[in-house]
Amino acid sequence: MRAQALNPHHNPLAGIATFAPKSANIRRRCNSTVRMALKADGPSIAVVGVTGAVGQEFLSVLSDRDFPYRSIKMLASKRSAGKHQEFEGKDYVIEELTHESFDGVDIALFSAGGSISKEFGPAAAARGSIVIDNSSAFRMDANVPLVIPEVNPDAMSHIKLGSGKGALIANPNCSTIICLMAATPLHRHAKVVRMVVSTYQAASGAGAAAMEELELQTREVLEGKEPTCKIFSQQYAFNLFSHNAPITSNGYNEEEMKLVKETRKIWNDNNVKVTATCIRVPVMRAHAESVNLQFESPLDEDTAKEILQKAAGVVVIDNRSANHFPTPLEVSNKDDVAVGRIRQDVSQDGNQGLDIFVCGDQIRKGAALNAIQIAELLL
Amino acid sequence: MRAQALNPHHNPLAGIATFAPKSANIRRRCNSTVRMALKADGPSIAVVGVTGAVGQEFLSVLSDRDFPYRSIKMLASKRSAGKHQEFEGKDYVIEELTHESFDGVDIALFSAGGSISKEFGPAAAARGSIVIDNSSAFRMDANVPLVIPEVNPDAMSHIKLGSGKGALIANPNCSTIICLMAATPLHRHAKVVRMVVSTYQAASGAGAAAMEELELQTREVLEGKEPTCKIFSQQYAFNLFSHNAPITSNGYNEEEMKLVKETRKIWNDNNVKVTATCIRVPVMRAHAESVNLQFESPLDEDTAKEILQKAAGVVVIDNRSANHFPTPLEVSNKDDVAVGRIRQDVSQDGNQGLDIFVCGDQIRKGAALNAIQIAELLL
Repeated sequence: MRAQALNPHHNPLAGIATFAPKSANIRRRCNSTVRMALKADGPSIAVVGVTGAVGQEFLSVLSDRDFPYRSIKMLASKRSAGKHQEFEGKDYVIEELTHESFDGVDIALFSAGGSISKEFGPAAAARGSIVIDNSSAFRMDANVPLVIPEVNPDAMSHIKLGSGKGALIANPNCSTIICLMAATPLHRHAKVVRMVVSTYQAASGAGAAAMEELELQTREVLEGKEPTCKIFSQQYAFNLFSHNAPITSNGYNEEEMKLVKETRKIWNDNNVKVTATCIRVPVMRAHAESVNLQFESPLDEDTAKEILQKAAGVVVIDNRSANHFPTPLEVSNKDDVAVGRIRQDVSQDGNQGLDIFVCGDQIRKGAALNAIQIAELLL
Repeated sequence: MRAQALNPHHNPLAGIATFAPKSANIRRRCNSTVRMALKADGPSIAVVGVTGAVGQEFLSVLSDRDFPYRSIKMLASKRSAGKHQEFEGKDYVIEELTHESFDGVDIALFSAGGSISKEFGPAAAARGSIVIDNSSAFRMDANVPLVIPEVNPDAMSHIKLGSGKGALIANPNCSTIICLMAATPLHRHAKVVRMVVSTYQAASGAGAAAMEELELQTREVLEGKEPTCKIFSQQYAFNLFSHNAPITSNGYNEEEMKLVKETRKIWNDNNVKVTATCIRVPVMRAHAESVNLQFESPLDEDTAKEILQKAAGVVVIDNRSANHFPTPLEVSNKDDVAVGRIRQDVSQDGNQGLDIFVCGDQIRKGAALNAIQIAELLL
């Protein structure tokens, strides 16, 4: 049995290719080119959790970006060991993840959940691997850099490939990455003092099975049947609900507190005030966020738009007359985070507030792409 | 041809009855009881736009609440004139709306769009009818009360049924009603000085045809077809987008400015600061809103919860351990606005901020129910 990459051409969600019609050309280009990133002087790589949604996207992004590698190991749980994984025209056998898996591995890309990261991340680092971890396990560890390459690359400048020393680097939470891609360029200009975020989060954040459940439920509801609720405890089709992360002692859920805490760490600013309300909406791949910003210095909307137009990894979609602004569909399978609805906040005096609306592909920039960009900083 | 009420038993969206399973009992009770609200001493009523989603809901709510009436006229455009409308066991012929329609009408319930209201509302009032208008035509008119019965009933206390004098009363926008149902009890206690609102708005706000388009598009996308885009300019199924209302000169869309301006008028407070980002999500009937509140006086979350538990027309759904909070599905076809995620805002000092999440049925409390409650204040 062959594991398949989660992209419109090998999608377990049959028929959902139309979700991202505008990305079809990009994907086709990638698939028709024979990649030659297998290079003797590239690093050796391991992908941990290769059968998951983000694991599969790791492979797509490595290939799309011609990431150089000497060798690549496909690692997963015992259940998936022995299955085959195709990558750049070669056939790989998926291996069971063990501590020994990391012998000789330069860069290990982890996306197999927090408990796997906690057990195998430090073990891999001890064997000399630089671990780029997509889970929340080490994000708030003071010794682990939490990195968005466009935002705070310096946080990992002490970590060097080929030094023989292993390390852990954490990938921020998807909502944090997508929010800060748009907020940071403005923060650099006028200093954000407070941020009120409301999210519109896609199924993909809960994995490929959640995307399948949303599709299944939608079919069931349209047929007048009771929806199957396995991943989530309630109906998701034609509904929305507070993010399913556990609620912490202050009434915020863990997803919301990630936005609060990770922003402080990434911006290296313990004074920035953030509140967030995280909501799951019936969308497949990409997150949206409504972000209200309060600045220390004045910042008008035209200047903000210019700043964002020049920002790396950001695209401005803000056509007021055509009512064309970012949507999850339009950013699905895209690298850039889209920002629009950029406007002076009428509820704040002195030109010191802005409202913006941001959309980003949760699996791509929210997870796999950001991790591969971290790996690129090591080259 | 017979127009049918938009409820789970007579739903043009076949199969969507499962959207609101918990309301089935309520609806069944209403439908099995023979209503006797046809009373000689009741007011004469006219329903303008009776074939629309809100017009149909007017009938459901009148019936559910045993609203007394001496007679009822079913009014619509020429296109619908001559069709039949059943109501409380009687057969009515739909009449074409003309200025003369209002002769002898005590209360006229309007929901046929702003231009119809502008033409026929003042004409009806001139003939002695008290017009309760669901459009935005007169909401910001200083001489027209803008009323949420639980919030500002006094604004219409000078308008009396049977005085022979006609009048206009405006029903606020759905998002404003749903937001203020939860915010007002807190405002009365600690005075809201600023409010940041992000909405998650259902298809119903754009009418029955939009709900049908969402269903059609969803079927098409699941079958791998291109979605039909007639009501909205872009794919709605498995997507979300900035509210389709026109963008005003300050970059806000009209829907957002309604929240800003109507709040000031309803609270009779020109200093309250409001910003809003309005987003359309692929949900059928009920709106959700993430609301960040800043108060003049301290207000802790336990007190806030107690206040909301006692508030008329509000139900608190806030079970942190079960992760059970309001959802659009759970409030669909319900009268009460549900509020949850009530928590101290970690981004505000001094116990003067709260985050809440509110859901309300857009067609019911957001439109028809609120209008009928206004009519009840006249009795």
